[in-house]
Amino acid sequence: MYNQITQKEIDALKILAGADAVFAGEEINSDYSHDELGGVSRMPDVLIKARSTEQIAAVMKFAYENTIPVTVRGSGTGLVGAAVPIEGGILLETTGMNKILELDRDNLTVTVQPGVLLMELAAFAEENDFLYPPDPGEKSATIGGNISTNAGGMRAVKYGVTRDYVRALTVVLPTGEIQQLGAKVAKNSSGYSLKDLIIGSEGTLAIITEAILKLVPLPKSSISLLVPFPDMKSAIEAVPKIIRSKVTPTAIEYMSRDTILFSESYLGKKFPDTKNDAYILLTFDGNTDAQVENDLKTVADLCLEIGALDAYIVDTEERKKSVWSARGAFLEAIKASTTEMDECDVVVPGSQVDEFIKYTHQLAKEIGVRIPSFGHAGDGNLHVYICRDALNDAEWEKTLEVCFDRMYQKAQELGGLVSGEHGIGHAKKGYLHRQYGETPMQLMRGIKAVFDPKNILNPGKIV
Amino acid sequence: MYNQITQKEIDALKILAGADAVFAGEEINSDYSHDELGGVSRMPDVLIKARSTEQIAAVMKFAYENTIPVTVRGSGTGLVGAAVPIEGGILLETTGMNKILELDRDNLTVTVQPGVLLMELAAFAEENDFLYPPDPGEKSATIGGNISTNAGGMRAVKYGVTRDYVRALTVVLPTGEIQQLGAKVAKNSSGYSLKDLIIGSEGTLAIITEAILKLVPLPKSSISLLVPFPDMKSAIEAVPKIIRSKVTPTAIEYMSRDTILFSESYLGKKFPDTKNDAYILLTFDGNTDAQVENDLKTVADLCLEIGALDAYIVDTEERKKSVWSARGAFLEAIKASTTEMDECDVVVPGSQVDEFIKYTHQLAKEIGVRIPSFGHAGDGNLHVYICRDALNDAEWEKTLEVCFDRMYQKAQELGGLVSGEHGIGHAKKGYLHRQYGETPMQLMRGIKAVFDPKNILNPGKIV
Repeated sequence: MYNQITQKEIDALKILAGADAVFAGEEINSDYSHDELGGVSRMPDVLIKARSTEQIAAVMKFAYENTIPVTVRGSGTGLVGAAVPIEGGILLETTGMNKILELDRDNLTVTVQPGVLLMELAAFAEENDFLYPPDPGEKSATIGGNISTNAGGMRAVKYGVTRDYVRALTVVLPTGEIQQLGAKVAKNSSGYSLKDLIIGSEGTLAIITEAILKLVPLPKSSISLLVPFPDMKSAIEAVPKIIRSKVTPTAIEYMSRDTILFSESYLGKKFPDTKNDAYILLTFDGNTDAQVENDLKTVADLCLEIGALDAYIVDTEERKKSVWSARGAFLEAIKASTTEMDECDVVVPGSQVDEFIKYTHQLAKEIGVRIPSFGHAGDGNLHVYICRDALNDAEWEKTLEVCFDRMYQKAQELGGLVSGEHGIGHAKKGYLHRQYGETPMQLMRGIKAVFDPKNILNPGKIV
Repeated sequence: MYNQITQKEIDALKILAGADAVFAGEEINSDYSHDELGGVSRMPDVLIKARSTEQIAAVMKFAYENTIPVTVRGSGTGLVGAAVPIEGGILLETTGMNKILELDRDNLTVTVQPGVLLMELAAFAEENDFLYPPDPGEKSATIGGNISTNAGGMRAVKYGVTRDYVRALTVVLPTGEIQQLGAKVAKNSSGYSLKDLIIGSEGTLAIITEAILKLVPLPKSSISLLVPFPDMKSAIEAVPKIIRSKVTPTAIEYMSRDTILFSESYLGKKFPDTKNDAYILLTFDGNTDAQVENDLKTVADLCLEIGALDAYIVDTEERKKSVWSARGAFLEAIKASTTEMDECDVVVPGSQVDEFIKYTHQLAKEIGVRIPSFGHAGDGNLHVYICRDALNDAEWEKTLEVCFDRMYQKAQELGGLVSGEHGIGHAKKGYLHRQYGETPMQLMRGIKAVFDPKNILNPGKIV
């Protein structure tokens, strides 16, 4: 189906992409064969370091003419194999395209290359007194990857998700043609939103080579609140009450003692409080200290009224660091606590978060496996980890199958979806198909064929 | 290409859709042949009053099997002919499907049928202490129409556009199949966003029969500020400065004295001030009076510093009514001031609003035609009207051609797009094609064919 890459193609690509940007065979580090979770792997035949829109267009045109698969990779922090070149061919790595091209203070936009890291963009915005609101936990992910998965992150409660901040994309189509989708405008009713189709399409429809992102003015004041509860049920049940209190926190994260303890041992740093079973961590921001303190007090009082055991204001730099570095390390900490893990990134209606978490606890007990979780209580997006610990290969495979089947089934019953922000990639395709049924998948396959008739761009993903 | 509707089809449709929901020939009021502007018109062969998702599915299945075009119409307040059945066939009118089905206080969503009017939804939300933020000027538009054009409205500066508030859609596909796209969740990375493709597709891909919309808690305090400037240039140049001051107004509208005077004479009501050439009207909302007053004062001081002549707080009920009813009547007032008009709904980067408005003034002078405008200064979306006044048919046609050509050309040069919120429909197709070029149009046509292989759903629109 696809053409094999021989020395001839490698030589041609070196001329098109630059000799020092093209690597083949043993020159390629084995890390390029997998993503952060590593459940699926395959080495690319050729690795190309992306440098410019024009270079990518030339490579893509060549790949199209020669029917060679192309997979795009950012930092490789994905968890569903979306950036793994499962059909071999070319792996195009964007981390070298890491320039922030323009800050437009009048239109509140920033124009970036796809390889800019989320942490770099966040810092740049803040230095210039702006905020780029999307805030996924993985700060070393590229912005191209964030757009490709429509990542949400912690501030979605107040600020929405990545999709809400993408004004325009420059893309290279599978044919090699360059197009700009959208514009530096706030409203758009000019034909089908191709831009919104590319967002969340995990590199299967087009290659993002530039993005115009919306910024907001940096809130002048920001503060966090850590609230311990006697159990997860009461912690999670507080969330809709908080949202309805008319105070809109920037973030509402939940965490169990287990997860915090993993993180303490992983980081070697103390968390302010580990006496209690369940915690919610909230952030508030605004333009005056008085307003933010008022919001914080309203929520603290409400939490204490409905069963919270305390309410710690996270105001010193030290406490901020200890709390948020712990939160940032949860994924790594759980990973370090076990031999292997796989994850479930379901999203359910906010009101069903408690129900879903209780279900994972029951399931863990029933099957005899650890299923720690953490996530975004405010927006219903949960990150649930199935830990292998001492299971052998056959047991692990069986456990994963049972756990995923039952968790996705449960999420669907509760009105949820397969993925909130990590995407479908290769690993979750079966579950997406099962939830959606044949017609939506046919529409998606049809759209894929419109953009990519030769199926050369990130084949084997989503559809 | 399409099959003609005879008595046989009418009888069959009466059985499928209910005898009292089907009208043919002289039973159909001529208003159904056109929209608000009336530039394009054609009578449908059959008018069907939509009643339920299932009824629509049955009608659509019949139309698909018999290759009969179907056009969906809400209140008919469109301005680009999107709801005009230009190929005849069935016109499906949704205003009877006007139930608010569910208010979910835990998940902050409301589930509505497509025929609910924007003003009904706004009032319902407010009665329940919530806000549905999108606020297009035309309050008697249906929510189905708002979603189909991704309408933006006045609060886009702070709250974004309709797209940002659509969590899920129930749709009937051109084959008659019913699908739910999206879910009652805040984040979604589960395959291509078919929901976002339907939003803004002007009824060409699927029929929206139900929508789950996001609400926000009703801000406790809201106040407007009317600021006169000596000329439009200084008024518009104040806008980016206001946005950068870290106060985010809910709305920033601009209006010229001419437009206000039309509105005064149309409504027979006095506007608080008409001494000056140009005005901006701002709204602020928040959860405490102190915060809102603080925001208002910051902006008032800033405006006075950069050349505003005054700053009127719109706080009494009477003043609020006079200002906002005038703003709400601009379109009708301009329409009443002339014999016929056509409009241009361009969107440009916020920083280019002044440049574009100045261009329309020059153009008006050069061609000798009136081109009043008003719109959303804060988000760059302008509503510009070309007035026919005493021109004869040939002159009018020529004037429209020249004006549209030059205005869309100018918008494109400034980094803008053909439509901010009114859509493309039938009237603006040529300009969309010219701006985008062949490839994006081909992608859109490909997507259209995936959803609607027989091209029976609202044919002749957008693509």
